[in-house]
Amino acid sequence: MDIADIQSYMQTVGARARAASRLIARASTALKNQALQACAAAIDGARADLLAANAQDVAAVLANHQDPAFVDRLKLTHTTLDGMIQGLEQVAALPDPVGQITDINRRPSGIQVGKMRVPLGVVGIIYESRPNVTIDAAALCLKSGNATILRGGSEAIHSNLMLAQCLHKGLAAAGLPPDVVQVIETTHRAAVSQLITMPQYVDVIVPRGGKSLIAKISAEATVPVIKHLDGICHIFVDASADIEMAIRICDNAKTQRYSPCNTMETLLVHAAVASEVLPSLCRIYQAKGVELRVCSQTRAILTTAGLSGLVDALQADWKTEYLAPILSIKTVASLEEAMDHIEKFGSHHTDAIITNNHSNAMRFVREVDSATVLINASTRFADGFEFGLGAEIGISTDKLHARGPVGLEGLTSQKWLVLGQGEIRTS
Amino acid sequence: MDIADIQSYMQTVGARARAASRLIARASTALKNQALQACAAAIDGARADLLAANAQDVAAVLANHQDPAFVDRLKLTHTTLDGMIQGLEQVAALPDPVGQITDINRRPSGIQVGKMRVPLGVVGIIYESRPNVTIDAAALCLKSGNATILRGGSEAIHSNLMLAQCLHKGLAAAGLPPDVVQVIETTHRAAVSQLITMPQYVDVIVPRGGKSLIAKISAEATVPVIKHLDGICHIFVDASADIEMAIRICDNAKTQRYSPCNTMETLLVHAAVASEVLPSLCRIYQAKGVELRVCSQTRAILTTAGLSGLVDALQADWKTEYLAPILSIKTVASLEEAMDHIEKFGSHHTDAIITNNHSNAMRFVREVDSATVLINASTRFADGFEFGLGAEIGISTDKLHARGPVGLEGLTSQKWLVLGQGEIRTS
Repeated sequence: MDIADIQSYMQTVGARARAASRLIARASTALKNQALQACAAAIDGARADLLAANAQDVAAVLANHQDPAFVDRLKLTHTTLDGMIQGLEQVAALPDPVGQITDINRRPSGIQVGKMRVPLGVVGIIYESRPNVTIDAAALCLKSGNATILRGGSEAIHSNLMLAQCLHKGLAAAGLPPDVVQVIETTHRAAVSQLITMPQYVDVIVPRGGKSLIAKISAEATVPVIKHLDGICHIFVDASADIEMAIRICDNAKTQRYSPCNTMETLLVHAAVASEVLPSLCRIYQAKGVELRVCSQTRAILTTAGLSGLVDALQADWKTEYLAPILSIKTVASLEEAMDHIEKFGSHHTDAIITNNHSNAMRFVREVDSATVLINASTRFADGFEFGLGAEIGISTDKLHARGPVGLEGLTSQKWLVLGQGEIRTS
Repeated sequence: MDIADIQSYMQTVGARARAASRLIARASTALKNQALQACAAAIDGARADLLAANAQDVAAVLANHQDPAFVDRLKLTHTTLDGMIQGLEQVAALPDPVGQITDINRRPSGIQVGKMRVPLGVVGIIYESRPNVTIDAAALCLKSGNATILRGGSEAIHSNLMLAQCLHKGLAAAGLPPDVVQVIETTHRAAVSQLITMPQYVDVIVPRGGKSLIAKISAEATVPVIKHLDGICHIFVDASADIEMAIRICDNAKTQRYSPCNTMETLLVHAAVASEVLPSLCRIYQAKGVELRVCSQTRAILTTAGLSGLVDALQADWKTEYLAPILSIKTVASLEEAMDHIEKFGSHHTDAIITNNHSNAMRFVREVDSATVLINASTRFADGFEFGLGAEIGISTDKLHARGPVGLEGLTSQKWLVLGQGEIRTS
């Protein structure tokens, strides 16, 4: 397809999604659950075809010498198919947010005014070569009453098109048209440029993938984007912290897994407890192979305690999301210094305080401007499943609409509902 | 100032607003109310200076032969100053949305998870030459804990700078820095371009004014914009409508005032009741001088009933926001045809159904994708004051974040709050 063909193809995809969005918006919860379960059954029944299509994708990628982690994310197995099937069933079991009516109050004019939760309309998902996202994203959008346009990584195209067939079979079983979930059939990059600049057809874009992809999409999109940029997460160990709790949480927040966005990247310790907390904690880190990049005060404390192998933190370290066994550590003089550091270098993602001082805890959660703030718990909890959302379509570092983990509710909005008995406005 | 000076000036304004946003975000409700009341007192004490500054603006505009409505909006009198003072006192009396903690639930991991309402940060307001907006907008942003950057129409610059002095005096009385509310001191257009492309300093832009201004800002902004575009509002009179109620509401929705965005622009009437509703209703409209642009079926009904002076509706009429004594009318065969018409030609602003059929009412409010949907009430109720918001910063035709009238809550967002007792993540 040339550029003009792609533009015209994407216009068609968009118009179909917009039309389908009206049908899925009014579908009952039972019908949507029936479709989700039929999709699961269709995947179960198409295992051989799915594995064959995926083998084509994997063979092409291996021929291009992609790295093993990439191949691993692309590859489908019976276990990953089981995961998709379970995922669909789990989403079917979640409560339906659509149609919820809240806060109905009578006004002096006589009208009753409240809010009604409704789908956003058409959701565009742009993601890398991970076929499981095709099913996860489709399931959440379907359950929340939205039509979906999916654009996965080009290396997964055969897998995604075969998964689309399963989704369409499931939708058909519930009497819903295939346009409710469309997988873009071209791997041309112009399709993405078109998708993110059709506000008449697309209500929101959710990019899932690396920071550079998301930054590029945000810069070019005219459709609103639910963005997930940096996760430079901090823990501040306050003067009144329970030392044993601080060590346990700080160990977990850094070392339980290194690559998630909610892993701690910078540890801030109040000077009053630094010599109690840091030596034991840093011995744990070093035993686990975590490189420590420290301020001069931290270095002095650790050196006195007999630790070595420390790296001096540079200015750049405080604003780096390592996603690796590296931790920057700063000893601070006060809660204020900790909050100033987080404001200056943080990414408004997830930050925690370890303290037994109630007023410091309350100041921290109110004043630290992050999507998730925690008191006496590991930053690793900032996650849709841990928060009880059932599943998440992504994590937002934006302030408008949805912040932090975004579940079904983040794929809906609230309209105003007015119940009258013939009232008119007189002034 | 040349362009480089303006860019540097706006960077300074932005950085100051960002710093001030941290102070106002943590200010107590009492302190914010004290500041609002001190601003009111400062305006009261500076009446002579305000009227003199405004007289300068008015003289310049009169010399340029601006139309009387423009001058009317610009001009300050003791009555408009009284209105500003009352507005500040009313906002002081509203409940403070900041700090509200909701939905705290305990999770299987032991953590308690909920949401906390916080200010957005820095709000930029771009508006026309109406000095009262300076005070209204500043009051709402201050109460909701946001720092504000105000850019009013250049013709009101002397009035706005004098109002800024009053605001700064009020802020100082409460111990708050003047950077909490800044009025941009240059009238150069480049200041607007800069303001809407500084996401590092500005969290949201609220443009207030004509459609072309808002469309231009939305197209160029990299900061999120709370937009208010067309208000093409419909009423659908269903087959089961109470005829007398339908006539009363349709009269009110069109003729109570012609220029507001929530005034009805298109009337849709079910064919089953068209000959009962339309003749009496259209006689009222014609008596009030409303021009009627009608479909052929409506024309036949009205002509049979002896009405004349009708205009044939063109395709363009269905998508026009008249803001004038003109109404387009279409007779439709069903609820579905009415909803299809609204989807095709409407602007997702405000739409109403007049019906006594419960399931039709429920289908209409669920399926019509508008910011406000009403049953048996005039579209004119779609308004922040009528909805009980106390005041509104604007009306949003967007789907994300805030829809419809936006009050204090729309100037805040919710972060996730986690209360732990030392929990760590184990899987």
